[in-house]
Amino acid sequence: MRVVGLRHTDGSVLAGTLTDDGRQVGVLAALEEFWAEPRRWLTGEPAFEHVMVDDVQLVPPVLPGARVICIGLNYLKHIAEGSYASEGVPQYPTLFARWPSSLTVAGVGIPVPPDEDGVDWEGEVVAWVGATLVDATPEDALAAVVGYSTFNDVTSRRAQKLTSQWTLGKNGDRSGVLGPLVPAAEVGDLRDGLKVETRVNGTVVQQGRTDEIVYTVGDTLSLISRTLTLRPGDLLATGTPSGVGYSRTPPWLLRPGDEVEVEVERLGVVRNPVVSHHARHEALGSGASA
Amino acid sequence: MRVVGLRHTDGSVLAGTLTDDGRQVGVLAALEEFWAEPRRWLTGEPAFEHVMVDDVQLVPPVLPGARVICIGLNYLKHIAEGSYASEGVPQYPTLFARWPSSLTVAGVGIPVPPDEDGVDWEGEVVAWVGATLVDATPEDALAAVVGYSTFNDVTSRRAQKLTSQWTLGKNGDRSGVLGPLVPAAEVGDLRDGLKVETRVNGTVVQQGRTDEIVYTVGDTLSLISRTLTLRPGDLLATGTPSGVGYSRTPPWLLRPGDEVEVEVERLGVVRNPVVSHHARHEALGSGASA
Repeated sequence: MRVVGLRHTDGSVLAGTLTDDGRQVGVLAALEEFWAEPRRWLTGEPAFEHVMVDDVQLVPPVLPGARVICIGLNYLKHIAEGSYASEGVPQYPTLFARWPSSLTVAGVGIPVPPDEDGVDWEGEVVAWVGATLVDATPEDALAAVVGYSTFNDVTSRRAQKLTSQWTLGKNGDRSGVLGPLVPAAEVGDLRDGLKVETRVNGTVVQQGRTDEIVYTVGDTLSLISRTLTLRPGDLLATGTPSGVGYSRTPPWLLRPGDEVEVEVERLGVVRNPVVSHHARHEALGSGASA
Repeated sequence: MRVVGLRHTDGSVLAGTLTDDGRQVGVLAALEEFWAEPRRWLTGEPAFEHVMVDDVQLVPPVLPGARVICIGLNYLKHIAEGSYASEGVPQYPTLFARWPSSLTVAGVGIPVPPDEDGVDWEGEVVAWVGATLVDATPEDALAAVVGYSTFNDVTSRRAQKLTSQWTLGKNGDRSGVLGPLVPAAEVGDLRDGLKVETRVNGTVVQQGRTDEIVYTVGDTLSLISRTLTLRPGDLLATGTPSGVGYSRTPPWLLRPGDEVEVEVERLGVVRNPVVSHHARHEALGSGASA
């Protein structure tokens, strides 16, 4: 099962499931209804209507008020290649924020902001929280995860590194590419080592396995839940393997005309063109669910 | 005029204006309608209904999908008292993220998370964006600000400093206290030097003036708009003056039973009790608009 969002003509967002051929969506419920009872909808509630994918606008199935919590440094080889290498492996997961309005889906053009030489790729796995978590144990937190998705955490490196805080560079327009939600029951455990691969114009630039992850989903959600109450629909991006562009010699960044794709075993691929900053001035109907 | 949010019994949020005596709210529109045309509603559209404040739940008039963008270091004396003092005044504003679900209003208890010795105060001014801004000039960005509010950016210092990124410690439950929106036309210019004062149990702990601000609202929104498109309803928290609790000798943090209030000239006061972490396990109907 692959859960997607589709924007209704009135602006509201519905949750639905892609058919196996990817050409139709079976509509399940309004997005708020879906996240009120995610397990009900993920265990086979029948669709009440089918629509052609070409006739609708797909968007991430993300509530506008959800938190997109991202782990910045989680694969050892990525820690070693980055700006923080000299500080070693941090004791706690480095958490930064995306607002849902930065999210988009496969196929949408990712603009390069005007002050950037390009944007950088970061292939990842996202975990979806399906329950309310307050001061949860790691076991309870992991059990609350209802699904996973492929994610490309596209980054504006100059904006990210203007100051100590990464927020701006992690929230560019249409910069977070989210694949469909695949139910946790179909995915199994990230400790099985799902392959994560990023390709640029067909060339492999990142390859990792999720069993390399330092801070597990359960431990990280548990930690978070001791400060803020997690809600159904919140997301945790689990960090990227080594091989990002900015730390290469010479640096390699995505420019308009490039195509970037992230593929995660059992979760599927998201593929996007990179476009110029002029696209930011066009009507921004596409992409964000917020 | 003081604009507030009120939660309807069906869960939706309406925008309204407080009467001068603060006892009634004149209901203006659904929150989405308000932010679709903020200038219309801020220039005297009559209320269609009045309700008693005691009969409704006040919430921040914040769209769930809004960005709450916060400047971390903006008053020279606060930079000098903090962890980053040795690095001097940064060239760019240090921007971090709050999710709207961390916001609350005056009167609501602020819980101390279980791993914190207490929480810290940060009295501030928030600016509200009222238009879409892409690659805006500082002048256009400032002209797009439709209002200002008093803000208490209550911080979980231990969580903030677990790693290089402050996100977790800035998003505790009910930790961002937002006062009513006061139209920009009634406030004038922050460069006039509005007095910002924070008091704990009646003792003054912070005193600053907004003309001490290093990174102006116009310059900062302009910078942000070159990476992400700002939307009506987005917020910019402009940073706090010196006098926060953690950098004192000995440190002084808010504990359950304390009362914290922030008052900004022309914007009003927000006053909140601090409560124990047990409050996080109670039903969280109150506070956030998300």
